[in-house]
Amino acid sequence: MHVMVVNVKAYSQGIADEAVKIAKIMEDAGREFGVRMIIAVQPSDIYRVSNSSKIDVFAQHIDAISPGGHTGWVLADAVKAAGARGSILNHSEHRLKIDDIYESLRILKEKNMESIVCASSHEIAKAVASMEPDYVAVEPPELIGGDISVTKAKPEIISRSVEEVQKVSNSKVLCGAGIKNGEDVAKAIELGADGILVASGVVKALDKESIIKEMAEAMSR
Amino acid sequence: MHVMVVNVKAYSQGIADEAVKIAKIMEDAGREFGVRMIIAVQPSDIYRVSNSSKIDVFAQHIDAISPGGHTGWVLADAVKAAGARGSILNHSEHRLKIDDIYESLRILKEKNMESIVCASSHEIAKAVASMEPDYVAVEPPELIGGDISVTKAKPEIISRSVEEVQKVSNSKVLCGAGIKNGEDVAKAIELGADGILVASGVVKALDKESIIKEMAEAMSR
Amino acid sequence: MHVMVVNVKAYSQGIADEAVKIAKIMEDAGREFGVRMIIAVQPSDIYRVSNSSKIDVFAQHIDAISPGGHTGWVLADAVKAAGARGSILNHSEHRLKIDDIYESLRILKEKNMESIVCASSHEIAKAVASMEPDYVAVEPPELIGGDISVTKAKPEIISRSVEEVQKVSNSKVLCGAGIKNGEDVAKAIELGADGILVASGVVKALDKESIIKEMAEAMSR
Amino acid sequence: MHVMVVNVKAYSQGIADEAVKIAKIMEDAGREFGVRMIIAVQPSDIYRVSNSSKIDVFAQHIDAISPGGHTGWVLADAVKAAGARGSILNHSEHRLKIDDIYESLRILKEKNMESIVCASSHEIAKAVASMEPDYVAVEPPELIGGDISVTKAKPEIISRSVEEVQKVSNSKVLCGAGIKNGEDVAKAIELGADGILVASGVVKALDKESIIKEMAEAMSR
Repeated sequence: MHVMVVNVKAYSQGIADEAVKIAKIMEDAGREFGVRMIIAVQPSDIYRVSNSSKIDVFAQHIDAISPGGHTGWVLADAVKAAGARGSILNHSEHRLKIDDIYESLRILKEKNMESIVCASSHEIAKAVASMEPDYVAVEPPELIGGDISVTKAKPEIISRSVEEVQKVSNSKVLCGAGIKNGEDVAKAIELGADGILVASGVVKALDKESIIKEMAEAMSR
Repeated sequence: MHVMVVNVKAYSQGIADEAVKIAKIMEDAGREFGVRMIIAVQPSDIYRVSNSSKIDVFAQHIDAISPGGHTGWVLADAVKAAGARGSILNHSEHRLKIDDIYESLRILKEKNMESIVCASSHEIAKAVASMEPDYVAVEPPELIGGDISVTKAKPEIISRSVEEVQKVSNSKVLCGAGIKNGEDVAKAIELGADGILVASGVVKALDKESIIKEMAEAMSR
Repeated sequence: MHVMVVNVKAYSQGIADEAVKIAKIMEDAGREFGVRMIIAVQPSDIYRVSNSSKIDVFAQHIDAISPGGHTGWVLADAVKAAGARGSILNHSEHRLKIDDIYESLRILKEKNMESIVCASSHEIAKAVASMEPDYVAVEPPELIGGDISVTKAKPEIISRSVEEVQKVSNSKVLCGAGIKNGEDVAKAIELGADGILVASGVVKALDKESIIKEMAEAMSR
Repeated sequence: MHVMVVNVKAYSQGIADEAVKIAKIMEDAGREFGVRMIIAVQPSDIYRVSNSSKIDVFAQHIDAISPGGHTGWVLADAVKAAGARGSILNHSEHRLKIDDIYESLRILKEKNMESIVCASSHEIAKAVASMEPDYVAVEPPELIGGDISVTKAKPEIISRSVEEVQKVSNSKVLCGAGIKNGEDVAKAIELGADGILVASGVVKALDKESIIKEMAEAMSR
């Protein structure tokens, strides 16, 4: 089943009840088109969203810590207890030390949580894939938040990443950066991605329902 | 009114329902002894705890960001929407750049949220006080989580901090590090502190109710 | 005596022999106009520059470490042994945790080395001044490397910083950001600064000798 | 040819003239036993050491920056101009973001400089190897600076790393952590390593000449 991950980042349009609204639209669209839906929210919204919708809620980040004296860092056990099923790691807006990626993946596996590790190039995609996350999300940073989709600007980065990742692991590949419509989504799937990681294209859209359905429909073809 | 801040850090004994239990005990003790109670929890627990108790819930940390593309960083607006009334900043387990302390204080003030900035010495207490947080929490790092209270090991660091902070600001001073019982609390107040910041002394106690009441009672004398 | 600090950053025009050339021009200009000259160079250039010129060489940064197992961090003892007389700290391109500023200042004092701590606002200038560095360099980050001098765009930030710094310490104030010519320098001194911190205005100038002399001359009036 | 890398870290016994002395001993031992010798020194010592000895001098770290406004960060061009032939990256005392490892490797290759990337496990060794550094140095952090050599405590981590690295790249493997004598060195080579990365075992030794020769001799067998 293809997967659509909506990362609401720290956008005003994606916190508190706004996050719940997006999750509910995703829930409907996921059911209609047979797409797995994941929403990655602010840590303070995990509990609220996971209690208001049936789709999977992810943290946008966890810290490489175990329970103990770690004031102000995000604990996997805590986001799991709040309802998170997994976490994004190493987003281009939150790059991590390689040892922390490794340790965070170990922690997530131990807690039966899923992982999406972001990578800015096929070389880094391969490097992180060798640590066996569930998903590697390929996002050239210069396209994130922009108007041109990676599928148009750099399609080869997706196909090459799929190829390199498969050489070293069973991780699935998500396509991110600049995805704005159904055409971009269809192209991502065609290039070998198992799904998409989208943010501003959904969260800042005036008609969120329409764009979410368009993307889900494109994924189900 | 004196204030008692319980920082549950990332302790297993302070997440999810455990955090709610501590908050409820604090609520009772605060009412009984006329002490303002604040619990600082994991970001993913803010919503749950603030909806289950009447005491003030704080974040343990916020990042110096405004709404936008900041995946995996903690947004003030989001923790506020989840129910947080303020945040700890610069805890010894999460030291911050001086510019980020300043910017985070600006953001908290803009959102009518309160601030507790931690400092490891009277010199740093004075430096952060000049940026006018609501509270400066003085905690010699070598005593945090330990068995000897700062009020016994280094009482002069509290009295000197109170003095230096008052020279440059209206910030109140909290006393932290190793506080374990009512005697430590009474001494902190005697040294000029407006309250205490406590963590393991409460969270890892076998009988949390008893120790919270003992501390609150000592503060009310 | 007024002081002119040239920070060559990591500009190609300021490494290796280029740094030596700048230092020699500064040496001549300093002697001619009675200005104390300091050049802050890459750590790998401290030895070369300090052995080729009589002006004071500073590190652009030191880490808050003592001798020991700290691979790849910059040790005060090492830069001192290479010829450094002091260090810049907390430059806007290298912001530091407040505890590290404090610890680095302690280390520099212990080694009889001088310190220049950068600050982006009068509030932060005051906060760092309370930790008693030798110099506080006030640089609004948005003007650094630009064409408009802080003395034109925000003169009040300099005069206010001088005022606030003097309230809490004996630190001297340097004026930075966008300083391009003798007029800017004269204005900085007029606003109460003890000197200037300049980078691209000198390092990227086509005729470095001419601009260094113009600035030194303006300082000597 | 086997390689012996001595990382002097920030030890007092390895800065300034002390670094030069170690380099000279290494030069003699390298010639006598046919071992390639590399000394990794503080950035401020690169110029002095590279001008006093014929062995290769490495930086202990470079930052992922290109020439420009990067005050206080270590520029590859600058350490190269001072005489460095390469750099260590991602030492356990200086862990890096995965994107910075990748970018730093790109910069080093562009400048014809060599790279040694440290890894704490065979999984991380494999991940960094896929980015094709010249050397991967495998060092379990818990053994660094200690009395028990990795070759005794965890020999399988070396042999497994050699195996995993060879699957994905042409990088050579160095063995580090706790190496104290010729026996440890011989064992490292036997396990498939191309050389060793040693620090306190040499730098803090009372008789540096004796231990360097012992290690070089063991490597030449």
